[in-house]
Amino acid sequence: MALRNKLMVINAGSSSLKFKLFQMGQAGEGGALSAIASGVCERVGDPSASFLRAKANGSEESKAQHAMPDHTSALGAVAQYLSSAFTGDFTKDVHGVGHRVVHGRHMSQPALISAEVRSTIEQAADLAPLHNPPNLMGIDAALQTFAGVPQVAVFDTAFHQTMPPAAFMYALPYELYTDRAIRRYGFHGTSYKYLTTQAAKMLGKPEAETNLVICHLGAGSSMCAVQGGRSVDTSMGLTPLEGLMMGTRCGDIDPAITSYLAAKGMSPKEIDQMMNKKSGFLGLAGNADLRNHAEARFGPHVGGDAAERSRLAVDVYIRRVRKYLGAYFMHLDGQVDAIVFSAGIGENSAPMRREFCRGMEFAGVKIDEAKNEGAGVGKAADVAAADSRVRILVLPTDEELSIAQQTVDVIAAASSSAAAV
Amino acid sequence: MALRNKLMVINAGSSSLKFKLFQMGQAGEGGALSAIASGVCERVGDPSASFLRAKANGSEESKAQHAMPDHTSALGAVAQYLSSAFTGDFTKDVHGVGHRVVHGRHMSQPALISAEVRSTIEQAADLAPLHNPPNLMGIDAALQTFAGVPQVAVFDTAFHQTMPPAAFMYALPYELYTDRAIRRYGFHGTSYKYLTTQAAKMLGKPEAETNLVICHLGAGSSMCAVQGGRSVDTSMGLTPLEGLMMGTRCGDIDPAITSYLAAKGMSPKEIDQMMNKKSGFLGLAGNADLRNHAEARFGPHVGGDAAERSRLAVDVYIRRVRKYLGAYFMHLDGQVDAIVFSAGIGENSAPMRREFCRGMEFAGVKIDEAKNEGAGVGKAADVAAADSRVRILVLPTDEELSIAQQTVDVIAAASSSAAAV
Repeated sequence: MALRNKLMVINAGSSSLKFKLFQMGQAGEGGALSAIASGVCERVGDPSASFLRAKANGSEESKAQHAMPDHTSALGAVAQYLSSAFTGDFTKDVHGVGHRVVHGRHMSQPALISAEVRSTIEQAADLAPLHNPPNLMGIDAALQTFAGVPQVAVFDTAFHQTMPPAAFMYALPYELYTDRAIRRYGFHGTSYKYLTTQAAKMLGKPEAETNLVICHLGAGSSMCAVQGGRSVDTSMGLTPLEGLMMGTRCGDIDPAITSYLAAKGMSPKEIDQMMNKKSGFLGLAGNADLRNHAEARFGPHVGGDAAERSRLAVDVYIRRVRKYLGAYFMHLDGQVDAIVFSAGIGENSAPMRREFCRGMEFAGVKIDEAKNEGAGVGKAADVAAADSRVRILVLPTDEELSIAQQTVDVIAAASSSAAAV
Repeated sequence: MALRNKLMVINAGSSSLKFKLFQMGQAGEGGALSAIASGVCERVGDPSASFLRAKANGSEESKAQHAMPDHTSALGAVAQYLSSAFTGDFTKDVHGVGHRVVHGRHMSQPALISAEVRSTIEQAADLAPLHNPPNLMGIDAALQTFAGVPQVAVFDTAFHQTMPPAAFMYALPYELYTDRAIRRYGFHGTSYKYLTTQAAKMLGKPEAETNLVICHLGAGSSMCAVQGGRSVDTSMGLTPLEGLMMGTRCGDIDPAITSYLAAKGMSPKEIDQMMNKKSGFLGLAGNADLRNHAEARFGPHVGGDAAERSRLAVDVYIRRVRKYLGAYFMHLDGQVDAIVFSAGIGENSAPMRREFCRGMEFAGVKIDEAKNEGAGVGKAADVAAADSRVRILVLPTDEELSIAQQTVDVIAAASSSAAAV
C-alpha cells in the first residue's frame, strides 16, 4: 500500500530543475517535515550534456548523465533516482507536489493547480518571461510524473499582496495599472513568509503583532517591511530588477538613463540585458560575487584600481541597504521589533551586517560586535546589544521547506472543505 | 557716469526668458541685494504671439506684445522696458549678469563665462537636452545685450558635487561612468545652497556644522541630505526625473518597466515623454497640481473615482517623501539639526507637512500642529514642538537671489585675483 508520506518540492528554471524531497512527520509529531533528498537537473534541453546531481538519505552527492530533452524527462530521471534510493515506486509515496512559481499577479495565497490557476500563471508570463514559462514546464512535467497527486503553486509574489496601494502603485499613467497590471509586485515572498514566522517565534510574539524589516541579501537581494506579520512594502517591483544593487542587477537608477542610452543607439533588449545581467557587483567591479570584494573593503588596505572598484561596489551596496532600512523604519513609524538578515550575504557576512547597522542608535538599533562576529552560518542568532531596543536577527532562510509546508496546508484545507461538502 | 549698481539674473527656457533685477546695496549696507524688477518673456520664437510681462519699482505688472523671434530680441525687449522704467540706458548700470544653468557636469562652483565654461555647458547639453541649449541661448543673448559686463553661470548641479562616490555612482557597468559621465548629478542645487545658509542662520549654527534634510517640494520635487553644510545625497539623478513623484514626472520606478513597455511597442521617445510629461499627479489623478487633490485627501470625505484617485496620488506622494526622509536620516546617522520644507508644496501645505512628519518621534521629530497650521506663506517658521530634538523649518526659497549673490561673489573674487596679479 502506498504510504503517501513524502512531499516533493520543484523549482524549474529554463534549463534546470531543482527538487527537494521531504518526509512528512506522523500526525503525532505535529506534521514536521524533514528533508531526505535533494538535487538538480542541469542543462535540461541539451540531451547530450544534461545530468542529474542528487543525494538521498544522507548519502554523498552523486552525479550522472541522463538524456533530458525536456523537463518531463528530467523529472523522470529524478523519479527513477528516488525510486532506487527509496523502496519501490517512489511516486506512489508522494502526498503532494509544491511548485515554486515566481509571478502570481493578484494571487495572495498558494493554490491547488487547476485549469484556472494554470492560466493565471500563463498570463503572468508576460511580467516574468524568464521565470513563469519554465515554472509551467515543471508543473506540466509533474502532472505527468505524479498523476493523481495534488499539485500546489506557491507564488513568490503572494506574500506582498497585502501592500497598501500607496506602496504598490507607481506614479505612472493610471491606465498602465488598470489595463496592463503594471504595479509593484515584489518577490522573495516565500522567504519573507518563512522568516516572519521564524522571527516571531524567536521574539516570542504572535506573528500578527510582529513588525520587522527583513533583508534577504544574496545574489538576488531585496528587502521587506513587515507590519503585524504582513508585507507593507518591498524593494523589488514589477520585476526583480528594482531596489537594491545585486550580483548582476543594477537595482534603482534614474529611469531616464534608459531613454538616454536608447538615444545613443542601444536597443531596449540590450539595455534590459545590461541592467539585469551586466550591472551590480559585476558591472561596478568585474565580478558578481560579494566574496570577491569583501577582502578589499574589510581586509588590510590594498592599492590599485581593482581594489578601489571593489571597495566602491561594496560601499554602493551598503548604502542602498541602509537607504531602505531608513525608509522602512519610516513606514513602521520606528516601531520595529527586529531587523532580520538572511540569505548569502545576510547570513554569512558579519562585517556587512555591522556596516548596515552602523550609526542606527538614533532608531534604537545597536549591534553587539562580538555576537555579530560569532554568529554561525546556518544557525539563528540575535546579534543585537543587550540594551538595543530593536533586535537584530540572523536567520537562515529555507524556501523549499516553506513551499513544502504551504503545500501540506493547501492540500489539508482542500480536503477538509471537500469533506464539508 | 554709469553706476554699475544693478545685478541681472536670467533664466532662459526653450520658449521663455525670465529675469529678475536686483539693486546692489552700498558697501556700508553689507552688499545686500534687493529685487527691483522682474518679468518673463513668453512664446519666444513665435514672434506674432510673443509678449513680455514685467513689473519694476513696485508697479503693477504690465503685459505687452513684442516681436521676439529669438532670445536676443527677447532680452532686447527686456532692456528697453527696464531703460524706460529706470533712468537712461539701463544696461550701463549693470554690474553683472547671473545665469541659471541646469547642468554643469563636474563644475562644483559658479563660474565666470569663458570659452571653456561655455563649452562645458554645451557638452552637458547631452545630459540635459531640454535645459542647457536654451540656457546657452540666454547667455549668448546677454553677451550681446550687456557687452563688456561680467557674466556668471550658476549651475543647478554644483551644490551636489560634494556627494561621495557611493551616493553618485549607479550600479551599472563602470564604463558608463568613465566613458559617458553617467552618474547622479542632482538638481535644485541653487535652492539647496540658499536654504542651507538660511537654515544655519535660523539655527544659530555655522553652516559647516549644520546637518539638514531639505525637501524642495514643488511641481519639480527633490530632497537633499546636507552634512556639515554640504550635499551628501539627493534624490534627482542623471536627470531631474529620478526620486520623488512630481507634477508630471514619475520619479522612481522599476527601470525594467521601460523594457517592458518597449517590448509592447512603445518607442524610447514615447516612454521618455510618458515618464516626464504624463506621469506623477497628472498620470495618477488627471491633473498635475497638488492643490486640485488636497481637498479630496484632507477635506471632508467625498466618494467617487476622481476623489479616490486624488487621495491615492497624494498618498503616493507622501509615502515617497517619507521614504527619502528615512533614507536621509540614515545617511546622517540620525544626527539631523532640522528638516527643511520649501517650494510650493513645502511652504504652502500644512497638512502635507503634518503627514510627512507623522510618527517620526522615534527619530526625534515632533511637529507642533498649531504652529504648523499657522506657518505663513513666504515667511520663515520653525514648526517643531518645543521638545522636538530635530527642528522643522518652513523656509521660502529664492533661487534668483541666490544666483545674484553668487554672481556678485564670483565677480568680486575674479577682480581681486586679477588685482593680485
